Amino acid sequence: MPRIKVGVIGAGKMGRIHIENLCRMFEVDVKSVSDIYADQIKDWARDRGVSYITADYREIIKDPDIDAIFICSSTNTHTQIIAEGAQAGKHIFCEKPFSFDLEETKRALNVVEQAGVKMQVGFNRRFDHNFKRVRDIVQEGKIGDPHIIKITSRDPAPPSLDYIKVSGGLFVDMAIHDFDMARYVSGSEVEEVFVKGGVLVDPAIGEAGDIDTAVITLTFNNGAIGIIDNSRQAVYGYDQRVEVFGSKGCVTTNNDYPNTAQWWTADGVHGDKPLYFFLERYKESYVEEVKAFIDCIIHDKKPAVDGQDGLQAELIAYAAKKSLLESRPVKIEEIAHEKAVKQ
Amino acid sequence: MPRIKVGVIGAGKMGRIHIENLCRMFEVDVKSVSDIYADQIKDWARDRGVSYITADYREIIKDPDIDAIFICSSTNTHTQIIAEGAQAGKHIFCEKPFSFDLEETKRALNVVEQAGVKMQVGFNRRFDHNFKRVRDIVQEGKIGDPHIIKITSRDPAPPSLDYIKVSGGLFVDMAIHDFDMARYVSGSEVEEVFVKGGVLVDPAIGEAGDIDTAVITLTFNNGAIGIIDNSRQAVYGYDQRVEVFGSKGCVTTNNDYPNTAQWWTADGVHGDKPLYFFLERYKESYVEEVKAFIDCIIHDKKPAVDGQDGLQAELIAYAAKKSLLESRPVKIEEIAHEKAVKQ
Amino acid sequence: MPRIKVGVIGAGKMGRIHIENLCRMFEVDVKSVSDIYADQIKDWARDRGVSYITADYREIIKDPDIDAIFICSSTNTHTQIIAEGAQAGKHIFCEKPFSFDLEETKRALNVVEQAGVKMQVGFNRRFDHNFKRVRDIVQEGKIGDPHIIKITSRDPAPPSLDYIKVSGGLFVDMAIHDFDMARYVSGSEVEEVFVKGGVLVDPAIGEAGDIDTAVITLTFNNGAIGIIDNSRQAVYGYDQRVEVFGSKGCVTTNNDYPNTAQWWTADGVHGDKPLYFFLERYKESYVEEVKAFIDCIIHDKKPAVDGQDGLQAELIAYAAKKSLLESRPVKIEEIAHEKAVKQ
Amino acid sequence: MPRIKVGVIGAGKMGRIHIENLCRMFEVDVKSVSDIYADQIKDWARDRGVSYITADYREIIKDPDIDAIFICSSTNTHTQIIAEGAQAGKHIFCEKPFSFDLEETKRALNVVEQAGVKMQVGFNRRFDHNFKRVRDIVQEGKIGDPHIIKITSRDPAPPSLDYIKVSGGLFVDMAIHDFDMARYVSGSEVEEVFVKGGVLVDPAIGEAGDIDTAVITLTFNNGAIGIIDNSRQAVYGYDQRVEVFGSKGCVTTNNDYPNTAQWWTADGVHGDKPLYFFLERYKESYVEEVKAFIDCIIHDKKPAVDGQDGLQAELIAYAAKKSLLESRPVKIEEIAHEKAVKQ
Repeated sequence: MPRIKVGVIGAGKMGRIHIENLCRMFEVDVKSVSDIYADQIKDWARDRGVSYITADYREIIKDPDIDAIFICSSTNTHTQIIAEGAQAGKHIFCEKPFSFDLEETKRALNVVEQAGVKMQVGFNRRFDHNFKRVRDIVQEGKIGDPHIIKITSRDPAPPSLDYIKVSGGLFVDMAIHDFDMARYVSGSEVEEVFVKGGVLVDPAIGEAGDIDTAVITLTFNNGAIGIIDNSRQAVYGYDQRVEVFGSKGCVTTNNDYPNTAQWWTADGVHGDKPLYFFLERYKESYVEEVKAFIDCIIHDKKPAVDGQDGLQAELIAYAAKKSLLESRPVKIEEIAHEKAVKQ
Repeated sequence: MPRIKVGVIGAGKMGRIHIENLCRMFEVDVKSVSDIYADQIKDWARDRGVSYITADYREIIKDPDIDAIFICSSTNTHTQIIAEGAQAGKHIFCEKPFSFDLEETKRALNVVEQAGVKMQVGFNRRFDHNFKRVRDIVQEGKIGDPHIIKITSRDPAPPSLDYIKVSGGLFVDMAIHDFDMARYVSGSEVEEVFVKGGVLVDPAIGEAGDIDTAVITLTFNNGAIGIIDNSRQAVYGYDQRVEVFGSKGCVTTNNDYPNTAQWWTADGVHGDKPLYFFLERYKESYVEEVKAFIDCIIHDKKPAVDGQDGLQAELIAYAAKKSLLESRPVKIEEIAHEKAVKQ
Repeated sequence: MPRIKVGVIGAGKMGRIHIENLCRMFEVDVKSVSDIYADQIKDWARDRGVSYITADYREIIKDPDIDAIFICSSTNTHTQIIAEGAQAGKHIFCEKPFSFDLEETKRALNVVEQAGVKMQVGFNRRFDHNFKRVRDIVQEGKIGDPHIIKITSRDPAPPSLDYIKVSGGLFVDMAIHDFDMARYVSGSEVEEVFVKGGVLVDPAIGEAGDIDTAVITLTFNNGAIGIIDNSRQAVYGYDQRVEVFGSKGCVTTNNDYPNTAQWWTADGVHGDKPLYFFLERYKESYVEEVKAFIDCIIHDKKPAVDGQDGLQAELIAYAAKKSLLESRPVKIEEIAHEKAVKQ
Repeated sequence: MPRIKVGVIGAGKMGRIHIENLCRMFEVDVKSVSDIYADQIKDWARDRGVSYITADYREIIKDPDIDAIFICSSTNTHTQIIAEGAQAGKHIFCEKPFSFDLEETKRALNVVEQAGVKMQVGFNRRFDHNFKRVRDIVQEGKIGDPHIIKITSRDPAPPSLDYIKVSGGLFVDMAIHDFDMARYVSGSEVEEVFVKGGVLVDPAIGEAGDIDTAVITLTFNNGAIGIIDNSRQAVYGYDQRVEVFGSKGCVTTNNDYPNTAQWWTADGVHGDKPLYFFLERYKESYVEEVKAFIDCIIHDKKPAVDGQDGLQAELIAYAAKKSLLESRPVKIEEIAHEKAVKQ
């Protein structure tokens, strides 16, 4: 069997996770990696068997050998690389979000569609063992029609202020995963968003123009109602739970823990904290999303999370932003329409 | 020790729960019970040692022997009886809500205040072992400053349509307990409410002018944000959970179950459903609230849940109603002010 | 409905628990209580509505009004009172164990049988919500044929040395409840016992001729195998768990906790300790066992736990004692036979 | 950094697990694999980058390039290969048990000792996240002195009768892992064993001369008492739990599950079964044990589980066998002594 030849663009945190996982797949050959700091990752990449390391991503796109590219560079470069990659006939795996501008995102998706290549967006949580099971249980009808979707999503600690300033804000950077999760587990589209947010963790985040705490109400097109609560700081670790309540029951998940040990002493009952952050908690989901992408190339299948999924989550994020600013519920349609008008 | 002499007004479901619990307290003598269907409860009350049964509650209020009255009659009679009881110098335990009209409630509270009698409102959930522990943990500072308060409150099955029609609606009838819980566990006052509600359980409830599903966002005066989700029908039983997330940690509770047995078979892992409804789930809390009330009479202490607590919960309920109608966040102040203006 | 008239003999810890519970039952009249320190309990009993308090239990037995007696005096008086009570035609509720001598126990049971009165032994744990559910699940066949029965039974703290000296030893005093539980949940009789015991908690217990830690292997007549582990000191509280493993699955129980609150902090996950000791853990089971006994009198039913159940548990306790002494598995038959030979 | 060159002898189930894991380690080069059915694994091994595949394990041992060998062939070949490998100066990772004969085991260990090579035995469960945490908690003194060690170890389904016939029996084949676990978590040596066993799962297992259910009591040299319960068939999946109870508390573990989803319906509370068997449950532990072995070669450290650990577990297994046959507690010393006498 010939191996799928992959080029990875951007070898920061996410790029390296994907490289590690791809290198362990016997069906894949990670042929080349590009990074603007190519020198700094050369040894690391060589040890993993990557044969070509470059500072110029276009070398990867021009390489006729390459079947698929992984776009893990900074967000402001995504749409450009998507367009170039698609036009060169490469299948594309792109980290979220596509961009910080809806029109830009739509244009890139158009190019992908016209080129007929496969594109998967990095909503890795869909491949998480817990949330996948929730989705299955909902789809099997075990809890009937969904009425209330609850998502808890709290990071253990805020990122650096430098990162926050270029992140696009809590909704586009962090809650976007939860917007996708809401669509994924409910199997419905979001129609309206209402946000109540605040700066409760660190005033500096507020000064940087962002919030660190949010409670988001979603209305789905089937009448179901969703709730997301976000915080940039849960001192006990990454808090990632989902609950779907329906006409025939309720499905919930708990956090993942490093072990099941519990110790009971004169002081009470004790256990270890949940897994620390996304690297630990979603470790397997990163493996699974990459497997799914490679699998959809090998067997010519539709990607499990495609461009439209990326776009919808971005639309919700922009509606959330507007709701926060204007202290009122905002319809997704309003965002889509407004952008169209602006065009 | 002389026993506290109690008269119970209204021997419906709640009245009978209180009578059963009062009869088991060695410090209390349930001297008399009034009910408009006095004949129907005569035998039942006699068996419990109640010496006087009447159809006219005023006989109880006029009885100089009676130290305290329990008002368990229908809501539309509460404020009248409160006022008469207070003026007669009786201590008062009153079921929630005080009334369906804020001005009426305020007038009754004024009479109580002027009479200088003790009044406790039937927010029994404050005496629940789980929620009391949450409150303690928050107050001990174990989770730091509260940021997010989450309350799940779902009934196992909707009441009869007849009941729904006179209930005052989901907010005043059902969510009012959760509004009180939000104030209780957070230790803060609610400033603003936003509601997203729907009729997802039974169209007949919608036709009766009520909703059966609600997601409520609360904003507290210390910046914390609250979420309540309500449903009139959780087929697996009464779902009553609280979570408070703060700067130093998070405290959560689970439902109560009839036993801890879990059985593992080739089909999976199984357990019994949570306790069915409030009679089962809050059994002990009804005992505890009555003990607390009797205790505050004997030792001349401030009631644990007083008239102001009842009033605040009603204010939030009215704000919620308005938010639902007008699809916008509504400030509590607005309700308080509007009523004042109306005056 | 005429009330069952009850006399309670012995108003120590257990006697007072029964009196409290009986006084709260509308079907029962606790007419008289006897205790060798009658003076000390007079006020307490009066407050509970007991009309006659005496130092002489025979006054209760002679009283033709009394329907049933509760024997809660010290173990060495049980068989004598059983015999006298039965001959006087009283129904009997007796605390465990019947005696410290198998022949004495058997003679008392004979008298009861000839008198045709009802007798229930105080194995309250059969009425515990968790263990009752285990028994039900086993009997419903949900786990198939039982193969392994595991019982964890650890006290929070050892009793006083004075008590230990007259207790009859760990097997007769403490493990006897577990022997009954093994029979109850398995629905089988024990054939053989092997014990490994030690003094790991307090050397003074060893000096008093007892052990404080034991691991007991039971063989049932259907081939199933049982394990009991006992300790006189679990610093985290009363540890009472049962597990039955069978051909089609396994049923387990957990301890009971004062609440379901769990708090997560930077230090880990925390919860409160299990309920402290039998008064807290088995509170409801004491109510239920008394209800069951009263119910079997009113409706002329067979007691749920009868004299034979008491006897079998004692036989296992004696076999356990012998196994410890002789470091070998001992058959129950051997104990029964040996006693018969001795006769 | 030069890679450690490894040869794997035997590419059955365990051999292939180790090959997969070794191939994913950047520090290791799996140079050669031997298997008596070399032809059947050729393609599989090539795909994983193994350069040399042979039917003759001696080719691996003779290869001066090879640093370490993994012995995963059938048990009856272990000691011969250990001896040859050690004499050739190879570090050795050997699956358990070393042999079916204590003297043979001891002779092999002597060769290893004289050769001064490192040897690790395949007690992978020591590297399990749950049990490692138990051990740590015990060693940190969090539960004080261990008093009772409880190990539940049940397979989801019996192996084939063909396998059972050559397995050496339940103690040497299955319980040997639990004997090692008992030593590992307690930090103490076992002095005496008592076994109660039976054929409750499948009579054919009895006809093959083995048992399928066992309850094993262990006595440790520090006075602690251990309990192991084994079954060849737990229809709900692999049941692997450990509990250590001590003077200051208790530490327990639960099984691992494929996800944390729990669904609540009108029928009760449901969850998925535990992970099916050792391949799923101990997946990570196989990675970790191999990492530890490679690490001890690279950094010249003592193996975490050495030859003496393998020998001790075998001694306990033989004592267990004798206890079952003779229905009495058997001291480990007796086995060691008897074998010495036999010599």
